[in-house]
Amino acid sequence: RAAGNRALFSRQGIFALNLVSSPGSGKTTLLERTLVDLKDEISFAVLEGDQQTSNDADRIAATGTPAHQINTGAGCHLDAHMVGHGLEHFDLAALEMLMIENVGNLVCPAAFDLGEDFKVSLLSVTEGEDKPLKYPQMFRASEIMLINKIDLLPHLRFDVAKCRAYAERVHPGIKIFEVSCYSGEGLEQWYAWLRDKVKCKRTGAKG
Amino acid sequence: RAAGNRALFSRQGIFALNLVSSPGSGKTTLLERTLVDLKDEISFAVLEGDQQTSNDADRIAATGTPAHQINTGAGCHLDAHMVGHGLEHFDLAALEMLMIENVGNLVCPAAFDLGEDFKVSLLSVTEGEDKPLKYPQMFRASEIMLINKIDLLPHLRFDVAKCRAYAERVHPGIKIFEVSCYSGEGLEQWYAWLRDKVKCKRTGAKG
Repeated sequence: RAAGNRALFSRQGIFALNLVSSPGSGKTTLLERTLVDLKDEISFAVLEGDQQTSNDADRIAATGTPAHQINTGAGCHLDAHMVGHGLEHFDLAALEMLMIENVGNLVCPAAFDLGEDFKVSLLSVTEGEDKPLKYPQMFRASEIMLINKIDLLPHLRFDVAKCRAYAERVHPGIKIFEVSCYSGEGLEQWYAWLRDKVKCKRTGAKG
Repeated sequence: RAAGNRALFSRQGIFALNLVSSPGSGKTTLLERTLVDLKDEISFAVLEGDQQTSNDADRIAATGTPAHQINTGAGCHLDAHMVGHGLEHFDLAALEMLMIENVGNLVCPAAFDLGEDFKVSLLSVTEGEDKPLKYPQMFRASEIMLINKIDLLPHLRFDVAKCRAYAERVHPGIKIFEVSCYSGEGLEQWYAWLRDKVKCKRTGAKG
């Protein structure tokens, strides 16, 4: 099923990201901000994964972006089958970038390929700098780590340099962006990366 | 295996707690502080669950409490079999309270009985007040929810009353303590609850 999704994304020229993190690291807030800031440049859709509630899809829909909620019930991660059915809710011909927000879980989603181009890990500075060492599979599976909520650093004991070194230890070459979705600090790097990926897709499948 | 652990705890008069939360909600820091503050009153041991590293067991051992680290590798939760073997590292006759720190994961550990008396959920105020609704199984399975890191409330948009209402909605009657393991605020309620439970065990099995 993951291969099927990947083939579909490739055929339609869709760039797909799988956002993974602990609960409450700020995935939905990152998406809200990104969608508002880039909606005039990129055509987005969002698949939201949660055990229960449609809170997140409601938040995304409020930005004007097509959104569909998947409730996993007792399930601890999204799988490619759920994503395949979720795609039926979107106009794929018009879509350039699919954001898949996984269930908040720093463990299980690491092992499941949804057909995405890349996994993106979020780590909030409130969670402690040791998380890449303690949950290495997730950070090894991710192309990017976003260190989020950096506006809170003055109130915390969190060592950004150590966190970067730990991530680099488990995944040499991992891209790391330091951001605050509250203040907006650092988001420009993330946006530049997204713009670049869409540009590559446009000059490829949809060019 | 869970029934076997439970029978052993009962026979030895050991009160066992299973601490569950997202990564970085403060389980280890709660334990460090609790062990230091209550070590003259209660005989503790700690089983630490993490995918990788012995960081947490090292932190616990530094408090002078017997600690054993279980690494789950790709595993997303502790199971009763791992706990059973972990117990082989402790002098059970001298033990009054076993703290089991589960893998940081707000989903999967909800479904696994380790033989504990109670599950205790931690929720950090940095994670957002909606988590009980989005991960209801964990909060339904927990006797207590500790709302942690309340020292950070002045810097956040987190509605404590809403969080309490959401937890009460998914688990009517759940006990809720608001604490900061950094400032120490609110910990006395938690300590009183622990003292009470040990007292009951002492007047029972070990009385």
